[in-house]
Amino acid sequence: MAKTDLASLSIPELGSLFRSGKLSPVELTQHFLARIDRRNPELNAYLTVTPELALVQARQAEKELGHRKSRNDRGALHGIPISLKDNIHTAGIRTTAGAKFLKDFVPEKDARLVAKLKTAGAILLGKTNLHEFAYGVTTNNPHYGPTRNPWDANRIPGGSSGGAAAAVAAGLCVAAIGTDTGGSIRIPASLCGAVGFKPALRSVSVDGVIPLSPTLDCAGSLARSVEDAALVFSAIQPHTKGAAPKSFTKKKSVLGIPKEFFFDMLSPETSASFESALKLLRKAGYEMKEISIPLLNNTENAGNNIAWAEATHYHQKMGWFPKHAADYGEDVRARLEIGARVSATAYLEAMEQREAFIQQFDSALAETKIDALIVPTTPIAAPLIGEESTTIAGKDHATRALLLRLNRPANLAGVPAISIPCGLTASGLPIGLQLIGRSQLDSSLLALAGNIEKLLPAIGNALDA
Amino acid sequence: MAKTDLASLSIPELGSLFRSGKLSPVELTQHFLARIDRRNPELNAYLTVTPELALVQARQAEKELGHRKSRNDRGALHGIPISLKDNIHTAGIRTTAGAKFLKDFVPEKDARLVAKLKTAGAILLGKTNLHEFAYGVTTNNPHYGPTRNPWDANRIPGGSSGGAAAAVAAGLCVAAIGTDTGGSIRIPASLCGAVGFKPALRSVSVDGVIPLSPTLDCAGSLARSVEDAALVFSAIQPHTKGAAPKSFTKKKSVLGIPKEFFFDMLSPETSASFESALKLLRKAGYEMKEISIPLLNNTENAGNNIAWAEATHYHQKMGWFPKHAADYGEDVRARLEIGARVSATAYLEAMEQREAFIQQFDSALAETKIDALIVPTTPIAAPLIGEESTTIAGKDHATRALLLRLNRPANLAGVPAISIPCGLTASGLPIGLQLIGRSQLDSSLLALAGNIEKLLPAIGNALDA
Repeated sequence: MAKTDLASLSIPELGSLFRSGKLSPVELTQHFLARIDRRNPELNAYLTVTPELALVQARQAEKELGHRKSRNDRGALHGIPISLKDNIHTAGIRTTAGAKFLKDFVPEKDARLVAKLKTAGAILLGKTNLHEFAYGVTTNNPHYGPTRNPWDANRIPGGSSGGAAAAVAAGLCVAAIGTDTGGSIRIPASLCGAVGFKPALRSVSVDGVIPLSPTLDCAGSLARSVEDAALVFSAIQPHTKGAAPKSFTKKKSVLGIPKEFFFDMLSPETSASFESALKLLRKAGYEMKEISIPLLNNTENAGNNIAWAEATHYHQKMGWFPKHAADYGEDVRARLEIGARVSATAYLEAMEQREAFIQQFDSALAETKIDALIVPTTPIAAPLIGEESTTIAGKDHATRALLLRLNRPANLAGVPAISIPCGLTASGLPIGLQLIGRSQLDSSLLALAGNIEKLLPAIGNALDA
Repeated sequence: MAKTDLASLSIPELGSLFRSGKLSPVELTQHFLARIDRRNPELNAYLTVTPELALVQARQAEKELGHRKSRNDRGALHGIPISLKDNIHTAGIRTTAGAKFLKDFVPEKDARLVAKLKTAGAILLGKTNLHEFAYGVTTNNPHYGPTRNPWDANRIPGGSSGGAAAAVAAGLCVAAIGTDTGGSIRIPASLCGAVGFKPALRSVSVDGVIPLSPTLDCAGSLARSVEDAALVFSAIQPHTKGAAPKSFTKKKSVLGIPKEFFFDMLSPETSASFESALKLLRKAGYEMKEISIPLLNNTENAGNNIAWAEATHYHQKMGWFPKHAADYGEDVRARLEIGARVSATAYLEAMEQREAFIQQFDSALAETKIDALIVPTTPIAAPLIGEESTTIAGKDHATRALLLRLNRPANLAGVPAISIPCGLTASGLPIGLQLIGRSQLDSSLLALAGNIEKLLPAIGNALDA
């Protein structure tokens, strides 16, 4: 097969090539390692590549899948090369969290989700770059260098799972594991033209993931299709063994368009792309309803106070802050300093705002029988590296706040959310569409997203830039 | 019957007089109302007495219990006159929380535990005095006057449920409902020679109880015997209908004596009384084991930071603080100001100290097969009203801190704890013994306390002072 083809195949396609003997996991792994060799020096998507480990795992998968008679088939992810964000503990492999003073930190134990992936037979290509300590949205890492957007190397991939999204978009892995506290999977998925799925809170164990804000932290998957993202999610859930998810339902769902908050500040191109998507979905028979969730307007304040306080508390507890204050990047240090100044009463108020928002969100969707909100993922396409302020309709906004804005609500509500590509800007940058589901209904949201994905225009890919 | 006898009878004794037709709930209620008339002007145990309501309830109980044939028997508390601490919502009856600006606050709805008591047929005599907002241990209330200790009117009854304990000790009710965030049931029970039971966290609903610190708040019972306290507790649990608890087991339990913390600063009389109690229990065959729970030493810091922050947060949320700052008593205002200065990271650290303490407490008792810790309730007997500092072994201690010290651990661990009288000082003041049980095992602890109570010397009573 042509090597460029391999990187564009889906997990089920690769699985069927494995099982029909037309492709070996070793061959596939070598293909991805070669692509990483070629493109990672520019993109800086990986901080650590683990070729020896990957090939050992690939040879084992080849053996287990190779002989039809004595086959030990571990399911959909068996033999599939993936990447892990570098804030996820990997036994024997350094885990930097993108931090200077964790440059040589080698965990003794795998994070629980890593153990699940190993059991599922997935192949680990390496650890991806991230915003320092997952505490930011640019992946412009001051210690390990910026990750670059595969669609335009002068632009950020988003973050904090920027390396993960860039690796997926550039075909440097089949799929990636990221983490998402305020949008850290969905923002880079949106900016890199990938699918990014943040499951419901506690659907996936974050045991062994370096915390940012335990009240909000989630681990999830990035991939080039909803189906692949769903297969990876399914493998890292505590209660499955990497089985494929239920086949996508054909039922037309009811989509909710919030009256508040989500459409206050969008770039014209994001607006236009979102409106075109709605038109296509209406044409395909999807019912759209307006929905009012006024407490959406509290989510920035609540999300900030919870994350600021919990992040600083964790860094203090670990003895990192203020001890290593000088070793943090400027932006992360500033946020840790803000966190030290949050009062307990402001934190408790934020936690109550979160509770109230959860209740209003859940009951608003239940009352209107809406299956998911449909909204943009980010108000803008990928900004330039170093761009700290972005102008929309003549008004300047902090780029960081803009990118986070539409993502925090799903973290506060604890509900699943997914970003899927829905178009390109005139200059060829991806635009993401976000679906925000109902409490705990991960697989319903994935099913819905899989149906909607098929109706949206293909944006092409960044595999051969 | 002689009227002084009635006030000294137990709930089962009263119940059997009701059911044999020898006593009517109306007669009993009138007896208590008369005692309140006589003694409350001095003791100030009640802030609000509700004679009309009590007599309506008593007549209904008389009717329901009166005719053997058509009897509607609601169980042990039917016809039993009790009091409620004035931070517990009572529909149509003012609920001041001991605060100046809630002088005329009349809730629309009963607290959940009040509804349970009404269903159980208990008779409500009135609402008892407390430390302002339950936020202190003296019940020296600046707005409604101090409650006085029935054993010595120059001394505090303890608090915050000081009115409840004084009412029980002076025979102004059969039993009382109090609340306990850091010892507010057990401290006044110890100082007034009553039994005070703080159930496990969440055993009794605090819905409709004005919060102090939601992480620590409990509601429980005060009475003149463990059996009565258990019967009242049983009636206010969400899942019972006022049924009598299981009969007390005869099994000899294993008692744990902590190496740390509890014996660091005790008055000589408390020490001596505690040692005599241990001797009696050993003689009766109880096994005593030393137990080490080093994190006991963190409980003051953790308990303070949690309660300070949560209390101030609640008062801010209600719009009381700082708006009514001038209307609070000096000590409560000072604590609310401290709470406003607690940082979110200190609060989160305290919550983690609590988690670590819970784990160490639970596993230490499980490993040593200890059923309950046996410790003093308060390091000193009742201080004088206005006494802010108390000398032990030549060293001055803040009286408030001394009284709280041995009680906070059970609130932090979330376990049940009970104070029972174990002796008198030379000047005739009660001394309390505390049993701290294992997670969720309310009825086991009550059974153990009932057995131990029988072995301890009777301290007499303060009914006819």
